[in-house]
Amino acid sequence: MICWLDGSLIDGAQKALALDDRGFLLGDGLYETIRIAQGRVQQAGRHLARLAHGASVIGLPMPTADIAAAMAAVIAANALQAGSLRLTLTRGSGPRGLLPPQAPSPTLLIAAFPAAPPAAPARVIMATRTRRNEHSPLAGIKSLNCLDGIIARLEARDLNADDALLPNTAGRIAEATAANVFALIGGEWLTPPVTEGALPGITRARILEAGGREAPLTLHDLMPADEIALTSSLGIRPVRELAGKNLPAPGPETAKLIAALFA
Amino acid sequence: MICWLDGSLIDGAQKALALDDRGFLLGDGLYETIRIAQGRVQQAGRHLARLAHGASVIGLPMPTADIAAAMAAVIAANALQAGSLRLTLTRGSGPRGLLPPQAPSPTLLIAAFPAAPPAAPARVIMATRTRRNEHSPLAGIKSLNCLDGIIARLEARDLNADDALLPNTAGRIAEATAANVFALIGGEWLTPPVTEGALPGITRARILEAGGREAPLTLHDLMPADEIALTSSLGIRPVRELAGKNLPAPGPETAKLIAALFA
Repeated sequence: MICWLDGSLIDGAQKALALDDRGFLLGDGLYETIRIAQGRVQQAGRHLARLAHGASVIGLPMPTADIAAAMAAVIAANALQAGSLRLTLTRGSGPRGLLPPQAPSPTLLIAAFPAAPPAAPARVIMATRTRRNEHSPLAGIKSLNCLDGIIARLEARDLNADDALLPNTAGRIAEATAANVFALIGGEWLTPPVTEGALPGITRARILEAGGREAPLTLHDLMPADEIALTSSLGIRPVRELAGKNLPAPGPETAKLIAALFA
Repeated sequence: MICWLDGSLIDGAQKALALDDRGFLLGDGLYETIRIAQGRVQQAGRHLARLAHGASVIGLPMPTADIAAAMAAVIAANALQAGSLRLTLTRGSGPRGLLPPQAPSPTLLIAAFPAAPPAAPARVIMATRTRRNEHSPLAGIKSLNCLDGIIARLEARDLNADDALLPNTAGRIAEATAANVFALIGGEWLTPPVTEGALPGITRARILEAGGREAPLTLHDLMPADEIALTSSLGIRPVRELAGKNLPAPGPETAKLIAALFA
């Protein structure tokens, strides 16, 4: 696929990143994964607003490039009808050490991916090897510091599961490794507040706007759920088993959500 | 400077990293910063053991390359007498998403840096914008997920300070942004245990072996300290001011430590 890197369209197989990019050396950056449907960027405004918010949290200047135009160029170059874009924004090159340069020159990479078939309903475990840190502002932004999620995803794979729910440091549920979690309880879609360590997901926001509700949730709270779903910008994945409990997947309300938001 | 990347010596200014390297996209990797003195790697065995431990924690296979030989080649190519090497080990290229490939092909970069003059005694604040997560195994390894440290370092810069101590989620002290902290209290050098979220630093280990002691520490506990020092593999930095309290820098015991470990 053709990528956009700092102002140019280049072959995605080209080795073109600097050895001193702070994204590579320190995880010093942010990303967004954005759905493409009918050749168009979905929820572009929300994604760019979240990126800008993340940049303000880590003190990173937003690139001066027209990101919307760059995304359109990548879509056109790849004739992408359905799939996703991954925007990666880092603080660019810098000298040795944690302290960023006073005037960083950010790196912006936009990569394209064809649509994958919808993921099968998920078997989900509770992660035990790590926890989300709800005391860090990183919990609320899409930073490049993904290792806690990777550790939990590897734990899931070791247990023949598809994903894991991460507890926060208080032991309550924050989110899945790369998705928010919603539970249908008493006829309401409930999801942990961002103060519990959940990323403010864009599909999550759309479900809340449609009547979902934030509530702190323990694993115990989830056990009576009629349906459970994992939500991300790319779709909604029904949960067929959580911590040994079987669930309808998709249940009727999950199917309605998918039809409403990802038709 | 000349770098070593995946088996070859290359110009450090060359853009040679793949766009899909998981180190760049996900912070999926580890690093070590290693002191070079008299043209030789210092504490090589401990650094490589820590790297191997970190790799086991994140499920990353160690590279098959002879890392000691690669480090020697970088030192020779740069005629480096005094300075540091930075080893960066990532899970290499992968498909979209958090889940690592079943058989990753790791990326290993070794970069060289000339010696910097010893850092002046430090003015140190307590970080308030973020916390170390002592519940994550990442706290105990040198992962590429450095953003909490970067956020704290930027907070220090905003307050005209040199470094910050990070509290853990319980509010006790874990470490500085890229160094361990030792406090001389009652004639003993005390430092937080790794269970508090401190990295098992190599200089830290050497001080513990020489009679230092692990103890949970709050900021309140540090206030009566006679001396405070920040320790890393590159040196020991005296603290001249912590949270508004002035300290001798270097105090006599800090000077003895520096002479003993970094002569």
